[in-house]
Amino acid sequence: MDVGFIGLGLMGRPMALNLLRAGHRVHVWARRRESMAPLIEAGAIAADSPAELARSVRITFSMVADAPDVEEVTLGERGVALGAQPGHIHVDCSTIAPEAVRRIAARLAERGVLMLDAPVSGGEIGAIEGTLTFMVGGDESAFATVRPLLEAMGRTITWIGSSGAGQVAKACNQILTGVTVVAVAEAFNLARAEGVDPSRVRTALLGGSAYSRVLENHGARMLDRNFRPGFKAWMHQKDMRIVLDEAHRSGVPAPLSAVAAQWFNALVGAGLGEEDSIAVLKLFEQMRGGQGR
Amino acid sequence: MDVGFIGLGLMGRPMALNLLRAGHRVHVWARRRESMAPLIEAGAIAADSPAELARSVRITFSMVADAPDVEEVTLGERGVALGAQPGHIHVDCSTIAPEAVRRIAARLAERGVLMLDAPVSGGEIGAIEGTLTFMVGGDESAFATVRPLLEAMGRTITWIGSSGAGQVAKACNQILTGVTVVAVAEAFNLARAEGVDPSRVRTALLGGSAYSRVLENHGARMLDRNFRPGFKAWMHQKDMRIVLDEAHRSGVPAPLSAVAAQWFNALVGAGLGEEDSIAVLKLFEQMRGGQGR
Repeated sequence: MDVGFIGLGLMGRPMALNLLRAGHRVHVWARRRESMAPLIEAGAIAADSPAELARSVRITFSMVADAPDVEEVTLGERGVALGAQPGHIHVDCSTIAPEAVRRIAARLAERGVLMLDAPVSGGEIGAIEGTLTFMVGGDESAFATVRPLLEAMGRTITWIGSSGAGQVAKACNQILTGVTVVAVAEAFNLARAEGVDPSRVRTALLGGSAYSRVLENHGARMLDRNFRPGFKAWMHQKDMRIVLDEAHRSGVPAPLSAVAAQWFNALVGAGLGEEDSIAVLKLFEQMRGGQGR
Repeated sequence: MDVGFIGLGLMGRPMALNLLRAGHRVHVWARRRESMAPLIEAGAIAADSPAELARSVRITFSMVADAPDVEEVTLGERGVALGAQPGHIHVDCSTIAPEAVRRIAARLAERGVLMLDAPVSGGEIGAIEGTLTFMVGGDESAFATVRPLLEAMGRTITWIGSSGAGQVAKACNQILTGVTVVAVAEAFNLARAEGVDPSRVRTALLGGSAYSRVLENHGARMLDRNFRPGFKAWMHQKDMRIVLDEAHRSGVPAPLSAVAAQWFNALVGAGLGEEDSIAVLKLFEQMRGGQGR
């Protein structure tokens, strides 16, 4: 099948490669031409613009940084909508606000383009290994159409509900991962302050109801002092901002998300934005004069 | 082996029964005589006081509500210390402050009694099924002596460190479970406010890095509107108080625990203290006029 892919960064590049490997003809576009080179080498076809790309395919994907980027590549001067045939499906895999999705999807619908929001979790490793989790919002039959393509890039693929619902699920995902990362750091720091080895605490807790994938994986990396991303602190900060904006818009309290967000703010302010968000542990330790190690 | 067990409530009763089933001669004492009846029926031997109990055995267990109770049954007028032979080991399975453990253990040591702190997680079901998690602090060779007894009552048994270290691990356990329970409620409430089915969100998230046992088990019970304990709200409130007292004493920040604790305070204040701590979901929903269902 001919498929279009827009945005070839850390996540988009391996995702597009997995579509190629699954035997699809992948047409690509990226703002920086050099980002396209590894894809072209692997057999992808370069397009001059999202609009041109949309002329050659019925389904396009985008994986970009934030809502204005999604807006530009879909509704902009040379965006997907300009080249798309009626019935075109655009699948945006970026993490943006549910509200932004609904707004962009409504404008695309006026131009005959069905938009699905399909944000992912699983990070760069999940993108490379094709084990991403997709949380999908939008028209359910359009979801059925693109599902085989998502299966080439991910393992857990769930249709959540109408337009924006995928982003709501992603926001919930970021609440749980963000809050748990800070909670694990808080617990490890308390243990160490009491003279107790946090790695023994982690081992004991993995066997019980405190188990989480964050305690297992992120916790192990905290103890190994391995702060390489993974998932960058500034991105977790951005995602918590989306959570808090949605909570504000919907008039619901998000008390733990609000606190976790402050720690990611502090992490970015401390110049650690490019490290993994688990580097929040360092902030706890620094307050104690860096006794952590 | 002759073993003593003090405190035969929801947790202590099934734990003592599991010691009996493992073939030990179990001597029991409880403040209320009627609590002893089911144990006596099952073959346990009643004692008139913790002191008398300690005369018949080399190892005693206690499972009581809070630090003053532990103090009374060990160091009180008719406490374990009064009847114990030199080298006696007392294993307290209650959840109390690490600081209280260290204080009681020091006084017991003066009387020739070795105290281990061995708080558990896994709740009533874990106690009945013999699948508790034990987090143990205190003398490591005393731990080796009692380990076979712990194995009759639990599955994951970890020596954490010196006296009080078991309680520190338990405090970390309560940070992670308490914070995650509130975070799951916060996420489900946001999803519902946005018109998204939280059960679909849960299913999607279980496959990724947001997975936790709380999301799986407690999350399922929240969606089933099953607020029966489980683990009572007032007990989670008590445990978060221990966490915050320790954080205060040690001079470390526990920002997420502090917020979660306020929700358990509110839960108790709303008259829901006897329900499971997952009833925190109701507080979120009530603010929205109870639209949750």
